[in-house]
Amino acid sequence: MSGFSLAVDAMGGDAAPRMVVDGLAIAAERHPGASFLLFGDEKRVAPLLAHHRRLATAQLRHASEVIGNDTKVAAAMRMRQASMRLAIDAVARGEAAGVISAGNSGALLALSKVVIKTLPGIDRPAMAAIGPSARGDIVMLDLGANVTCDTRNLVEFALMGDVFARTVLGLTSPTIGLLNVGSEDVKGDETLREAAEALRASHLAPQFHGFVEGHDIAAGTTDVVVTDGFTGNVALKTGEGALRLVGQLLRQVFNASIASRLAYLLARPGLARLREWLDPRRYNGAVMLGLNGVVVKSHGGTDAEGFAHAVDVAMDMVTHGFNEGIRDGLARIGRLETRHGSADADAS
Amino acid sequence: MSGFSLAVDAMGGDAAPRMVVDGLAIAAERHPGASFLLFGDEKRVAPLLAHHRRLATAQLRHASEVIGNDTKVAAAMRMRQASMRLAIDAVARGEAAGVISAGNSGALLALSKVVIKTLPGIDRPAMAAIGPSARGDIVMLDLGANVTCDTRNLVEFALMGDVFARTVLGLTSPTIGLLNVGSEDVKGDETLREAAEALRASHLAPQFHGFVEGHDIAAGTTDVVVTDGFTGNVALKTGEGALRLVGQLLRQVFNASIASRLAYLLARPGLARLREWLDPRRYNGAVMLGLNGVVVKSHGGTDAEGFAHAVDVAMDMVTHGFNEGIRDGLARIGRLETRHGSADADAS
Repeated sequence: MSGFSLAVDAMGGDAAPRMVVDGLAIAAERHPGASFLLFGDEKRVAPLLAHHRRLATAQLRHASEVIGNDTKVAAAMRMRQASMRLAIDAVARGEAAGVISAGNSGALLALSKVVIKTLPGIDRPAMAAIGPSARGDIVMLDLGANVTCDTRNLVEFALMGDVFARTVLGLTSPTIGLLNVGSEDVKGDETLREAAEALRASHLAPQFHGFVEGHDIAAGTTDVVVTDGFTGNVALKTGEGALRLVGQLLRQVFNASIASRLAYLLARPGLARLREWLDPRRYNGAVMLGLNGVVVKSHGGTDAEGFAHAVDVAMDMVTHGFNEGIRDGLARIGRLETRHGSADADAS
Repeated sequence: MSGFSLAVDAMGGDAAPRMVVDGLAIAAERHPGASFLLFGDEKRVAPLLAHHRRLATAQLRHASEVIGNDTKVAAAMRMRQASMRLAIDAVARGEAAGVISAGNSGALLALSKVVIKTLPGIDRPAMAAIGPSARGDIVMLDLGANVTCDTRNLVEFALMGDVFARTVLGLTSPTIGLLNVGSEDVKGDETLREAAEALRASHLAPQFHGFVEGHDIAAGTTDVVVTDGFTGNVALKTGEGALRLVGQLLRQVFNASIASRLAYLLARPGLARLREWLDPRRYNGAVMLGLNGVVVKSHGGTDAEGFAHAVDVAMDMVTHGFNEGIRDGLARIGRLETRHGSADADAS
C-alpha cells in the first residue's frame, strides 16, 4: 500500500536486536502498510521476528558485522558487511526510502554522508530533533553534526527545520528563531547577524521571528530553533539534564514520608500524564536532514516503545515528502541568492 | 569590624530603589559588620533607608542620573552622575571593595571594565554564577561576557572559576570541566583541545576532569563548568527555561482536581523544599570575575530576598580574598606558560 520500504539496522542499540524487533512490531501496528527491510545477524534476528505476526512481511538480510558504540568512524567505514552499512546501502540504491538505526551516531552520520550523499544544493546535513515546550512540540537543529557553521549553513538549517516541522509536526506555517545570547552589546556574532538578514530577505521572512534565547526553547516561542551544532548539542543536553534533575528530586519528595506517598497516589493521573509528556522516548529519533534519503538515529539506550517512535518519524518524513519540500525550498532560496548574494558570503 | 565597604547602586532593578534598600536590610542582618555606601536619588532613597534601623550606618550619596535598562552602553558611558557609575567609581577609587547593581547588565559590564579595569594578567573578565545540581551547587562561566573565546581565555576562566568555587562555595579542591559536545568525531574544536592540554599541564591538573557535556551541568559532574560566553549564556537560559516549564506543568497537575489539590497539601513540605532549593533568587548574583574589585550583577527582576543573596556573594568574595586567590593562580599559570607556551598561542 505504502509503496516504499524502510531499512532497519537490527543490531544497533544497547538492547539490540530484541529491542529493535519489538519496536518494529509496535510501529507495524501503527503503520499497517509499512514494509521493513532488516539487516542483522540472521541466527539472532530470525527467531525474534518469528514471534511477531505483524512482522510476517518484514524481510531479513544477513549482515556478518556489527559496528559497536566504540568503533572509530574510520574503522566503521571499512566494515562493508556491517548491519548499519548494509541498511544505508539499501537507501543509496533506492531500495529503501529511509534507514533507522540505534547504533553508533558518529558512524551513522559519516556513513550516511558518504554513501547516501548530501542533497544537491545542501552544503552540510544537520541533526534535528523534536522536543517539548510550553506551547507544544518544537524542532531544534543542528544538534551536533556541525561544530562550526557559516551563514549559509544556518540559512539551510532554517529551511530544513521549516520543512521538517511541516512534515513531522504537521504545522502549516512554523515560526523560526535563530538562537542567540541576550545582552544588547554582545548580541550575535557576524555569522548570526548575516543569517538573520538572509532569512529576512528570503521566502521564510513571514515565518522568521528573529533571535531567540535559551529560555525560549522550553517556552516554545518559535516552532523551529536554529543554531550551530555545538550550541545545539549543549542546549539539548542541558535541557534534558535539568528535566532529569527535577524528576529525581520529585521522586525523593514523593518517597519522603507516608503523607507524600499518599500525595503521589492522589496526584498520580496528572503526574503520569506529565511524565509521559516529557518522556524522552516520545521524542526519540534524531534525524539527519539534507541527505538523499531519510536517516533517523534512535537513542542507543531506548526501549521498544522509543524505537517505534523513531520509526514513526521516518515514516512521517517519507510519506509527507520531506525531501521534495527541501528541494522546493532550496529552489526558492537559490533564486534569492542570485538577487542578494549575501547569504552565500562565507559558503565554501 | 569588617574594615571594608560595599558600594550599592540603589536605582538599578525593576523595583528599585525600594527592593534594593529592603534587600540591603536583609543582608545587613546576616552581616552585622558590613558597611554600605549607597548611590541614588536622595529624595527617594533617604526615606526608605529611614525605615530600617539596621541600615542606620549606611551612607547615602546623591546621584542625579539613572541608567535605564534600554540605555545604550555608549550613552551609559557618558552618564557621569549615574548611580551605577558613581558606585563603580567608588570601587575604582578604593573607597569600596565591591559593587552590587541590579541595573543594565551591558552597562555594568562595560563601565566596570573601563573604570575598575581588568586585573593584571587577566585578558578578559568573565561572568560567572552559581546554580543547583544533583550533587550540590556548581559554578558556571562565562555566561555571556565574551561571545568568542580563545584558549588563553578558557584557561583563565578555569582559574577564576576555581578560586570562585573556593571563596564562595567553600570547596577546598573544586573539580573543573570544560564544556564540549558528545560525539567522538566532533569532539571539540582546536581551541577546546588546546585549553584541555594547557589545563592538564597546569597546577589545576589534579582538579581538571576533562570535557563535560550539557547534561553534566545539572548532574553536578564537576564543581566548575568552563565554557565560552555564547555557549554558557545559552546553556544557563536553556536550563532555567526547562526548570520553569516543569514548574508550570506541576502547578497545572496540582490544580487539576480536588484529589490533586489534596495531594499538594500532603506533599507540601517536600515540594516547598524543592521549590526553595531551585529558587532562582537563591542563585541570584552573577559575578564579573577578573576585575580590580568585586562586581556583582543582581537580576533586574529580583526581589529583596534575591538582592540580599547578591550581597552575600559580594561579601563572600571580599572576605575570602577572591582577587588575592586570582593573583596567586595567575602567578602559577604564568610560570607554566614560560615553560610550555601553548596556552598563550592565540592570546592577543
